[in-house]
Amino acid sequence: MTEMTETAPGWLSREDLELTRARMPIIYVDAVPVRADASGVVTHVGLLLRIGSDGTVSRALVSGRVLYKERVRDALMRHLEKDLGPVALPHVPASPQPFTIAEYFPEPDVTPYHDPRQHAISLAYVVPVTGDCRPRQDALDLVWFTPEEAASPMVQQEMIGGQGVLLKQALAYVGCLP
Amino acid sequence: MTEMTETAPGWLSREDLELTRARMPIIYVDAVPVRADASGVVTHVGLLLRIGSDGTVSRALVSGRVLYKERVRDALMRHLEKDLGPVALPHVPASPQPFTIAEYFPEPDVTPYHDPRQHAISLAYVVPVTGDCRPRQDALDLVWFTPEEAASPMVQQEMIGGQGVLLKQALAYVGCLP
Amino acid sequence: MTEMTETAPGWLSREDLELTRARMPIIYVDAVPVRADASGVVTHVGLLLRIGSDGTVSRALVSGRVLYKERVRDALMRHLEKDLGPVALPHVPASPQPFTIAEYFPEPDVTPYHDPRQHAISLAYVVPVTGDCRPRQDALDLVWFTPEEAASPMVQQEMIGGQGVLLKQALAYVGCLP
Amino acid sequence: MTEMTETAPGWLSREDLELTRARMPIIYVDAVPVRADASGVVTHVGLLLRIGSDGTVSRALVSGRVLYKERVRDALMRHLEKDLGPVALPHVPASPQPFTIAEYFPEPDVTPYHDPRQHAISLAYVVPVTGDCRPRQDALDLVWFTPEEAASPMVQQEMIGGQGVLLKQALAYVGCLP
Repeated sequence: MTEMTETAPGWLSREDLELTRARMPIIYVDAVPVRADASGVVTHVGLLLRIGSDGTVSRALVSGRVLYKERVRDALMRHLEKDLGPVALPHVPASPQPFTIAEYFPEPDVTPYHDPRQHAISLAYVVPVTGDCRPRQDALDLVWFTPEEAASPMVQQEMIGGQGVLLKQALAYVGCLP
Repeated sequence: MTEMTETAPGWLSREDLELTRARMPIIYVDAVPVRADASGVVTHVGLLLRIGSDGTVSRALVSGRVLYKERVRDALMRHLEKDLGPVALPHVPASPQPFTIAEYFPEPDVTPYHDPRQHAISLAYVVPVTGDCRPRQDALDLVWFTPEEAASPMVQQEMIGGQGVLLKQALAYVGCLP
Repeated sequence: MTEMTETAPGWLSREDLELTRARMPIIYVDAVPVRADASGVVTHVGLLLRIGSDGTVSRALVSGRVLYKERVRDALMRHLEKDLGPVALPHVPASPQPFTIAEYFPEPDVTPYHDPRQHAISLAYVVPVTGDCRPRQDALDLVWFTPEEAASPMVQQEMIGGQGVLLKQALAYVGCLP
Repeated sequence: MTEMTETAPGWLSREDLELTRARMPIIYVDAVPVRADASGVVTHVGLLLRIGSDGTVSRALVSGRVLYKERVRDALMRHLEKDLGPVALPHVPASPQPFTIAEYFPEPDVTPYHDPRQHAISLAYVVPVTGDCRPRQDALDLVWFTPEEAASPMVQQEMIGGQGVLLKQALAYVGCLP
């Protein structure tokens, strides 16, 4: 889960955010971008590629915080645009009901999800994307995988913090878990 | 729930269908066509207008049977195209999970749903529609209502068989029940 | 949404909470306690009775914050025990998926939900309760209503902050919206 | 999916059922019996053991048809009692919304689910069970597995017709997919 630099008025300063993170659960959204065929069957899942400062490769969902006075669906749109570019044409679901919640704990093994920086509670959505995806932040690429590939050990082991499990839950939800 | 004339090979004859209806629950789909804004908020709900042989007006959801060896999402696409025309561009959800099921009983008051012809179990979906809707069957029109209008007594009393309740459940599901 | 006095170590002080509330969405749970018959049909909904300092009566769902490093289902259990007593025997659902989320904004009319104190994002669950309910906090009582009564204007107008809408969404979800 | 002998008045004769199966989708329910801890976390999943006429062992979910004029939740209760005995105390969910639908096709590979006898559309539910389970039909036993065991290749390969996939979908839904 990447953190954008937040400097707009009304947003938390980085110091304030750090202080708050030590004391409150922070609310996040996770989006699983998918390609679907004409009848709605998911054919591909999009994962972001990240290169760590130590050169390690990881793959990630679209993810980020919900801001003060921001609606959840606006947070989804903002993070999707940030990570997929302005012409990705995401179709945020009509229902605000997430397909699951992911509780990222600062300690491992409390839940399947882990974020050493904070206790984050994330609302997870599957978002069909029909436009052209152009990841535009630092060293990010977007790769489309079939459901079989996405659930394979090779891709799963490149995901961190439990997002591999969350991805499999998304595949189960859309009826495409191999 | 309208029944299309089914004459394609492999389909039930009308006599066979009548016989089966007296002895088995029949599986249906109900679709609630909606217009949504850029962030996915439902702004309008589409209802079909029907004029009965006695001149009574009723409003209805897109609805119909699932055929033998037909996938549920193909049944949804078929009935949406039948009722909304070929360029309606329905976005059938990625997940096969219906937002609810409606159990239409041949006797009233067993459930909120009633169909004197049969015991039908219907899988209900909200389907965003982005194209141009041209209803093309006998005396059908399609009218778009705001969520407030759709839940109003005036529209509700024009719906029959419990579809008014099902419509309100759809509005609740998308967070737009007034 | 009631706020319990939080003095345990590791919890936010009231001052810190006030400061945070002005800058971050706060995560809540809302629980709709229900009685169900042997086959799972909801027969009654439980609402808390509150008498305001000015003598006004209001009815409320079980509601409260999720704490730092607290699992959502533990927060649900804690608030249910706080409001319904220790022998209510709540059956928290096996799935962490809420039936909806309620976004309480500090300004009215952004969403159907409103909380002048804060921006709260609440995960909403229906929780069957099979034990004996003994509300134990300040002037609270618990009254059981049929779904028809719960959706009636009389009960709805006694609910504040949009919880009446949330209650109707719960009724829709369990197939009991009149 | 086992078929009970149905001789009560109003039910289909076996010949009629065979005829109908060749022409209509048949509606089923699938139930995944689970044990949960006090806060609702699934700790075990119950699978039926079956010995085929050729001595092969398979494991199965609780499954069966919905009858004419039978409510879905009554069908769930009937099949749970048939397979788990009269004191299993199943808690059928308050919401009629299935966690997914499984479309069993007579041909393999159309969907993940396959039933050579028929086209069955099954509504799938997770059902917490708090009583004593005593399977009582022909050579059935019930074995409780942890989520890890249930998702393991050893158990998965003993399940047929795609029920292993459906079981993994249930685990994903309750947040316990390893």
